[in-house]
Amino acid sequence: MSHTIREKQKLINRVRRIRGQMEAVERMLIDEKDCAEVMQVLAGVRGAVNGLMGEVIEDHVLMHVAAEGLSQKERNEGAAELIDVLRAYLK
Amino acid sequence: MSHTIREKQKLINRVRRIRGQMEAVERMLIDEKDCAEVMQVLAGVRGAVNGLMGEVIEDHVLMHVAAEGLSQKERNEGAAELIDVLRAYLK
Amino acid sequence: MSHTIREKQKLINRVRRIRGQMEAVERMLIDEKDCAEVMQVLAGVRGAVNGLMGEVIEDHVLMHVAAEGLSQKERNEGAAELIDVLRAYLK
Amino acid sequence: MSHTIREKQKLINRVRRIRGQMEAVERMLIDEKDCAEVMQVLAGVRGAVNGLMGEVIEDHVLMHVAAEGLSQKERNEGAAELIDVLRAYLK
Repeated sequence: MSHTIREKQKLINRVRRIRGQMEAVERMLIDEKDCAEVMQVLAGVRGAVNGLMGEVIEDHVLMHVAAEGLSQKERNEGAAELIDVLRAYLK
Repeated sequence: MSHTIREKQKLINRVRRIRGQMEAVERMLIDEKDCAEVMQVLAGVRGAVNGLMGEVIEDHVLMHVAAEGLSQKERNEGAAELIDVLRAYLK
Repeated sequence: MSHTIREKQKLINRVRRIRGQMEAVERMLIDEKDCAEVMQVLAGVRGAVNGLMGEVIEDHVLMHVAAEGLSQKERNEGAAELIDVLRAYLK
Repeated sequence: MSHTIREKQKLINRVRRIRGQMEAVERMLIDEKDCAEVMQVLAGVRGAVNGLMGEVIEDHVLMHVAAEGLSQKERNEGAAELIDVLRAYLK
């Protein structure tokens, strides 16, 4: 992936937030916190993972399937990778 | 969408199966069947809708984003439509 | 499921809306409408199915797992049915 | 949450695996790896988060909604917490 530095930093920040949420879940389990709290944080994690996935897919479509100047071979490969991931994701 | 007649018929058959499942859900509600049965059928419907969506997205990517011979304008439009749908779907 | 008549009618109306959306998808496929339109309607269907599922699960939890006056055997059965469905649904 | 030590350790191991996957995603972004690889790992993370959520919900249902010996007040609270989470999750 070749992003501008700014876009790259935004994606990394999203990843770090999810890592922080998962660390919180781990502490909650160790400290035997309420299931209800754990479930709330996990619902947030799911939303954050979906949002991050949306960003990465968007980048992939724009850079590896639709971009001007790609060869037809590159375009076909980018499309195949995208379809593979969506099949796994939409199950 | 321009599919071969065979592909089109397969998509329509998938849609009809989902319609049939929803008719079953309606009858179950009218007949006051168990929640558990209704939930099982609805879990199946969700899977079937995701599978159908996967097929339609695949067709869209191949025909409107990656296909040889599209203009760059058509490709950009196809990509924007795809990204819009995925954003709504990955929430 | 034993709902008040009003709740039951609301659930049935939700089901009919989803059936109507699926009929629209079928017509769009027959008429070879744009993939993009089909995908938009299907994203709506997915949301509507999830919403309906949420309602039915809620009813199930309240009536068959948490309700006052259930025997422990009924409660255990209601919990097992719920867990089965959620496992299929959260995949 | 009061689990046996063995169950608790299994949940914590699941959380650690997800944290490891997110660390891998972070390194991939820093090293500018292919979108396709990042998407594959994220699809795995989504599955793993759903699986963990399923376990926690199951524990919650068994311990805080269906368990013998709960007061009706505790049962109602457990049911309300569950319904809140499922509404957020099934959107």
